[in-house]
Amino acid sequence: MSESAERDERHKARMQRKKAVVEEKIAQAGDERGLLLVHTGNGKGKSSSAFGMAARALGHGMKVGVVQFIKGAASTGEEAFFRRFPDEVRYHVMGEGFTWNTQDRQRDIAKAREAWAVARELLADENVGLVLLDELNIALRYGYLELAEVLDDIRRRPPRQHVVVTGRGAPAELIEAADTVTEMGLVKHAFQAGVKAQKGVEF
Amino acid sequence: MSESAERDERHKARMQRKKAVVEEKIAQAGDERGLLLVHTGNGKGKSSSAFGMAARALGHGMKVGVVQFIKGAASTGEEAFFRRFPDEVRYHVMGEGFTWNTQDRQRDIAKAREAWAVARELLADENVGLVLLDELNIALRYGYLELAEVLDDIRRRPPRQHVVVTGRGAPAELIEAADTVTEMGLVKHAFQAGVKAQKGVEF
Repeated sequence: MSESAERDERHKARMQRKKAVVEEKIAQAGDERGLLLVHTGNGKGKSSSAFGMAARALGHGMKVGVVQFIKGAASTGEEAFFRRFPDEVRYHVMGEGFTWNTQDRQRDIAKAREAWAVARELLADENVGLVLLDELNIALRYGYLELAEVLDDIRRRPPRQHVVVTGRGAPAELIEAADTVTEMGLVKHAFQAGVKAQKGVEF
Repeated sequence: MSESAERDERHKARMQRKKAVVEEKIAQAGDERGLLLVHTGNGKGKSSSAFGMAARALGHGMKVGVVQFIKGAASTGEEAFFRRFPDEVRYHVMGEGFTWNTQDRQRDIAKAREAWAVARELLADENVGLVLLDELNIALRYGYLELAEVLDDIRRRPPRQHVVVTGRGAPAELIEAADTVTEMGLVKHAFQAGVKAQKGVEF
């Protein structure tokens, strides 16, 4: 047998083993229910990954609810895009600007609580297939919201509803409660090399 | 001063320092150009984050090109969703199924090369603001494409065009060439706990 044909054969055998392992896992994994996902860490992609899930859910005909907790003031590309579909996406932006722009803790707390009231409505609506709580971790970290109350509302949601929470520094209890947790780690970032935040990438 | 007022004051001072640091960095970062981003690692969110960027770019009125290198056969939610906008998104799915479903290396190579020909067209089109090369890293890892050729085509793209490459095991040369690299690390995953892949979350 030629070297290339041998390589192809080895590849085939490896892929067959992989397929068997994957199929076995799928057969075992029978539970169908709404998941709680957390995207945390210092790297890029926590929010954009959640918005990619929103696109995915819309592609499956689901309704999506979005509450943005911190990045209120900037009109981001995601917001402009997902607001095109008001029948499919309920999009709420709460607060104003990054928290270091407001410099008023009492006002931030009030805004965060208003935002949570909207989130709670979405978490009670079984017609909403995916609830995206963007930068909720930041609001929790600053103590703007009560973690126990937040976890309670998330736990009581409709059984098929998915929830994705983003933001650095996810609290341990939220990670404990989550089904899937991804830590976005920073390997390198253009910003460190003096490159300005770019439209379509960063915002 | 009450304890609560003191806490608010400390918060304000901290936020003012943060704001100053961020504004200084923004002032220094003057370079406006297309970025090369890489999403790699074993965690969730590599592709969905890239699709979130696509939504963001569309929100800014950019045109987007997508080439999916490996996940060909499954009709994903993203595909269904982004195909709604044929004037704004050029969407190409190449190959068929996960690589462990085809078990034919020569066929995979031929499909990957066809896919790269489409990617090259997008990388030569200055009207395309963002090119998403989904699971390209897998095609590179299996040796289906020549890394040198791929890097060369990426380097020659229009100067304002952004490119995002996803997939586990990004090659070192690609990481070296990239502006921003995120490693999606697996903290925990519902699949490990016996939960079936869920529509709107996993696919």
